[in-house]
Amino acid sequence: MRRGRARVGTVAFLSDYGLTDPFVGICHGVIARITPSARVIDLSHGVPPQDVRAGAVQLADSVAYLPPAVMLAVVDPGVGTSRRGVVLVCGAGGALLVGPDNGLLWPAAEALGGVRSVFVLDNPAYQLTPLSRTFHGRDVFAPAAAYLAGGLPAERLGSRVDADGLVRLVLPGPVPREDGLDATVLLVDRFGNLSLDARPADLGAALGATVELRGGAGRWTATVAATFAEAAPAELALIEDASGRLAVAVNQGRAVDRLDAVPGTVLSVRGLPPGHPPARG
Amino acid sequence: MRRGRARVGTVAFLSDYGLTDPFVGICHGVIARITPSARVIDLSHGVPPQDVRAGAVQLADSVAYLPPAVMLAVVDPGVGTSRRGVVLVCGAGGALLVGPDNGLLWPAAEALGGVRSVFVLDNPAYQLTPLSRTFHGRDVFAPAAAYLAGGLPAERLGSRVDADGLVRLVLPGPVPREDGLDATVLLVDRFGNLSLDARPADLGAALGATVELRGGAGRWTATVAATFAEAAPAELALIEDASGRLAVAVNQGRAVDRLDAVPGTVLSVRGLPPGHPPARG
Amino acid sequence: MRRGRARVGTVAFLSDYGLTDPFVGICHGVIARITPSARVIDLSHGVPPQDVRAGAVQLADSVAYLPPAVMLAVVDPGVGTSRRGVVLVCGAGGALLVGPDNGLLWPAAEALGGVRSVFVLDNPAYQLTPLSRTFHGRDVFAPAAAYLAGGLPAERLGSRVDADGLVRLVLPGPVPREDGLDATVLLVDRFGNLSLDARPADLGAALGATVELRGGAGRWTATVAATFAEAAPAELALIEDASGRLAVAVNQGRAVDRLDAVPGTVLSVRGLPPGHPPARG
Repeated sequence: MRRGRARVGTVAFLSDYGLTDPFVGICHGVIARITPSARVIDLSHGVPPQDVRAGAVQLADSVAYLPPAVMLAVVDPGVGTSRRGVVLVCGAGGALLVGPDNGLLWPAAEALGGVRSVFVLDNPAYQLTPLSRTFHGRDVFAPAAAYLAGGLPAERLGSRVDADGLVRLVLPGPVPREDGLDATVLLVDRFGNLSLDARPADLGAALGATVELRGGAGRWTATVAATFAEAAPAELALIEDASGRLAVAVNQGRAVDRLDAVPGTVLSVRGLPPGHPPARG
Repeated sequence: MRRGRARVGTVAFLSDYGLTDPFVGICHGVIARITPSARVIDLSHGVPPQDVRAGAVQLADSVAYLPPAVMLAVVDPGVGTSRRGVVLVCGAGGALLVGPDNGLLWPAAEALGGVRSVFVLDNPAYQLTPLSRTFHGRDVFAPAAAYLAGGLPAERLGSRVDADGLVRLVLPGPVPREDGLDATVLLVDRFGNLSLDARPADLGAALGATVELRGGAGRWTATVAATFAEAAPAELALIEDASGRLAVAVNQGRAVDRLDAVPGTVLSVRGLPPGHPPARG
Repeated sequence: MRRGRARVGTVAFLSDYGLTDPFVGICHGVIARITPSARVIDLSHGVPPQDVRAGAVQLADSVAYLPPAVMLAVVDPGVGTSRRGVVLVCGAGGALLVGPDNGLLWPAAEALGGVRSVFVLDNPAYQLTPLSRTFHGRDVFAPAAAYLAGGLPAERLGSRVDADGLVRLVLPGPVPREDGLDATVLLVDRFGNLSLDARPADLGAALGATVELRGGAGRWTATVAATFAEAAPAELALIEDASGRLAVAVNQGRAVDRLDAVPGTVLSVRGLPPGHPPARG
């Protein structure tokens, strides 16, 4: 029996539903009705509304830390249109991802070893009726995840389709420059840290202990540091964050308030000569 | 044995406690101490503070999607006064609702088939001591729900009283007008959608594909659509939301920012002649 | 077998991670991988970012309401520096607290009967690798709590050290004055109530039914009341909150908006003569 078809019992759930409305709680109820023994791990429901890329990055960042689980992800600006709902069977282990086919699942699928097979969620026997036009998390995706967590084979949920037709989400990646790189802000976290789509290795050995950051009309200097606390209080630092990406942070402060950047902002990171005075933001 | 007295094992919990303080976590702890095997489904703790009507609507919207569960709801501006705490036994199945007798439970009780019996939570043996004056969620309601989830018969929690004495919460409902209707905003969700106290059938067949919305000094036109994405980006749409109510939404935007409405605002919905130019907000 | 070394199965988790990022969900995943049967009770993840004192007070307020559980607390501005991670074995029952040694655990340890033994989390066999510099909740603390919940003896997690070396967090406490007291605002809750570091008994019998509050340039009068609802609507009241502390509240309103206080603000509470007109804020 392939692991993807075995009973996994756990659903890991990520969405942009927030926690001020009962959307998430209702999905929990739906899952409990279908598979009473299922456990649900809420990864995050604070993805910025309809920000598919942020949700995709958060999901991909999380997969290595999860127990065997059906991953249920819903950031779905196209709900009610012809965009498809899918289950992806991934990697050698047959890991299962459920959600809209809009790129949200793609980076996680790659992190799990790539897509092995795809089924479109078109079997109404495993959906709620009446089927709403606006809440497929409740009516389509949570039921699919619950049935999978209960041991239903993925192919029962709908038609097999070719993986080549999936919507892919490709991150912009860092753009190398002679004296540094340009990188896109992917996420801004609760602490105001800016996670960039670049890794420390992308910086190159040539980069000194101080860099210049540019974005829009602004210019700031930042210390390259191993951790927040290595920078002086209120000082900008460029660190490796917990997902292995470069991040702009402020010791005891919020980088986002200093740089006025949002997800999607492109920042330039440039080396400064060794004699440059210490970063003061 | 009536189902309302059988062990159900699950507590579905809704409140206005928010998640920034440990109020909800402490109630989880109280439940786990009393009935270690109980599972708690958090429906929502983001009911606007002390907004009994919003909590009542969220709870009633949720009941159809829950497994057999004791429903625990706390939005309780009168905590510490003479308002009663109650458990309602509802419908043919004996579904159980626990909370303050301030109308919060009423719409859910009706959705569950109506109140069959009522017990006031006046038995101190099933409350925490000392009993606080300000946190009956912790001291009275969570314990009651936990004991019920563990199989305690509802009548053990306190005195039986007449259901006629319950505080009822009656929603305003739509007011039909010659060329449309007036409806109250019940909820504003995370996406900025305004859920109205009216259903699509209330609009009548006479209504065209474009309506005028009026509220306060504002006037807007909106497209009547099946789903968000059917409206042009940034366009106001009148859709059926996931609870079956009419809702004002903006494709890729936030209706609440356009209409400046809050829960309680009355909006007028009026049909426009077929030749009217498409909605532009 | 000492209780602290027995399998407790439950982890109670408090942090300042918030719920908009997947930090908390990832920690849940880590715990489920290590001890699949562990249950996690989320006490609160809304501690103000890096506010060790607020987290310490919330944790200490919660311990009496929890079932036997490993308490996992992470508010950790010094992550990545030389500050230690520790497990504290507390009280006669051997209750277990896991977190950074920065004072966060101290008031809870005292509430649990005092620290009996301390182990530094320096055994890499029970940490994730690679060990990040910025997310010890995921890499050090959640694993430690999960292993303890699964029955691992605390001494396996690292070296035993002397409890005298622990960082202690001592609350400022009330300062008695001839006609009242001065007290520090510890917490501001979702409802805008200000919880003070003083208890009703500190007020003394001499205090009348009306007090004057002073903070910064402001002066307000407040009614001493048993509960919110005893004050007139919009009136300031001084009540005993659910943690047994004095709190400034407004019936149907938000005290924090009236007094413009934050955690750390010192308020003066002074008795007013009995004939003083009723409080009007």
